[in-house]
Amino acid sequence: MIYGSIEAGGTKFVCSVADQELEIIERQSFPTTTPKETIGLVNGFFKEYAAELVGIGVGSFGPIDIHRDSPTYGYITSTPKLAWQNFDFVGTIKESFQVPIAWTTDVNAAAYGEYLFGNGSGLSSAVYYTIGTGIGGGAIFDGQFVEGFSHPEMGHMLIQPHPKDSFAGVCPYHGNCLEGVASGPAIEKRAGKKGQELDEEDAHWELIAYYLAQCAYNTTLMLSPDVIIFGGGVMKQRHVLNKVKTAFKQLLNDYVEVPDLDHYLVTPKLEDNAGTYGCLALAKEHQLHS
Amino acid sequence: MIYGSIEAGGTKFVCSVADQELEIIERQSFPTTTPKETIGLVNGFFKEYAAELVGIGVGSFGPIDIHRDSPTYGYITSTPKLAWQNFDFVGTIKESFQVPIAWTTDVNAAAYGEYLFGNGSGLSSAVYYTIGTGIGGGAIFDGQFVEGFSHPEMGHMLIQPHPKDSFAGVCPYHGNCLEGVASGPAIEKRAGKKGQELDEEDAHWELIAYYLAQCAYNTTLMLSPDVIIFGGGVMKQRHVLNKVKTAFKQLLNDYVEVPDLDHYLVTPKLEDNAGTYGCLALAKEHQLHS
Repeated sequence: MIYGSIEAGGTKFVCSVADQELEIIERQSFPTTTPKETIGLVNGFFKEYAAELVGIGVGSFGPIDIHRDSPTYGYITSTPKLAWQNFDFVGTIKESFQVPIAWTTDVNAAAYGEYLFGNGSGLSSAVYYTIGTGIGGGAIFDGQFVEGFSHPEMGHMLIQPHPKDSFAGVCPYHGNCLEGVASGPAIEKRAGKKGQELDEEDAHWELIAYYLAQCAYNTTLMLSPDVIIFGGGVMKQRHVLNKVKTAFKQLLNDYVEVPDLDHYLVTPKLEDNAGTYGCLALAKEHQLHS
Repeated sequence: MIYGSIEAGGTKFVCSVADQELEIIERQSFPTTTPKETIGLVNGFFKEYAAELVGIGVGSFGPIDIHRDSPTYGYITSTPKLAWQNFDFVGTIKESFQVPIAWTTDVNAAAYGEYLFGNGSGLSSAVYYTIGTGIGGGAIFDGQFVEGFSHPEMGHMLIQPHPKDSFAGVCPYHGNCLEGVASGPAIEKRAGKKGQELDEEDAHWELIAYYLAQCAYNTTLMLSPDVIIFGGGVMKQRHVLNKVKTAFKQLLNDYVEVPDLDHYLVTPKLEDNAGTYGCLALAKEHQLHS
């Protein structure tokens, strides 16, 4: 028995296959171009495992339709990536592989991976953010994703501009929402160079930490999860998390007693593999219940 | 069989008893003074039903300890109401009535009432806010409260000050957090008179609606519930909800497709009884599972 994982990101697709214990057997990445081209490569990857493949888990960029009773369930919906708008992702994969397909957002998949095998392991709840090209978040309570009429779009929460910050933000919808001021492109536009080229002491980090601390603060007060995990490219600069913790403490002002910050605000234990393991685990569970 | 409800608010306690169908038999209110005095009156109320009483549901002002494995489970913890700090609420009630006691926050109880019998009925998720002396919120997904290391404190989320608003806010912890700028006392301090004395056309309402719309917006993007219910004294002015809807639409800027606003942003169907029915339902469920 083989489980498949498709992490469908805005710049690349990462495909993996794993055995029953979710040990990864093979993995390949493909650039995100057009559905025809990219899905062609995805199908090619899984083809040699087709005979043993029993389920696939997909974590996709979005927005996506997650409502089982919707006629467009399994579609990517209103994405700004025109080629992928209204793309029937689950339906297209099912044409090639007639196996149960678990379907969620890329951040939900990563949240699930960390919840099961990473820094959420043993806890009853976890919230996962990716701070990268965009900002997205997923929340899991008692093993269930938090989702109602749709999946969350946490990256677009409103936060208070820093008193010294007049940056208008880069979000085409909301200007200076969280993604508009703290994503990779926001850092680059504001600083004139990429985050990874900025010195650890650069004053821009103080602003970024201030905004990510507000994200952690709002998450704490709205969801009070057992852990908040910050992943994505921006967090690879390890000094950022410490700056976020300092700013978070100031904001919270001891209003609620939170868990020890070294265990409460963390980066992903699985590093870049959180999404893969999340997709694989979802594939396995979905297959067992189909 | 009789079920009891205790809605423990900051200014008054509302006690009710109901039959197995949760039809209310009797109800009384007592002022919130000291634990000794107020709980004395509560005990007096339930005493005549003691023989038939099989369970009590408590929805309390907070913060409260909801962790079953904590030594202070059932306590009100760090409330600014000094007389009630570290008060063993559940333990004290159990001294008089040896029945299973369901224990949650006042807003969670109201959220649950609306979820089961009000404007959340038939939906899979609901978020309930009370906008009054304070601002609080509770979220329910698939019948479960959203809570991790503790219960949420949604009223203290950060929101963006209106460009024309220089009001510092009244929250002693966070200044201009949501509660600091949109609660009853915030309206009164800003306008110089109580909300109910303000004309429908008064410009202050535009600011309040702007902040409550941000609350609805952040709730939408972080939780995407099936419905957001705004209760509490401030919302009794029916014109406020319409102003919130208008501001919410502008903020959202069509970024996500939300349910029809007339069913998505609503006031409580059960009006002031949401908390009572929530407590009674929790009492019944808790008793059935004890």
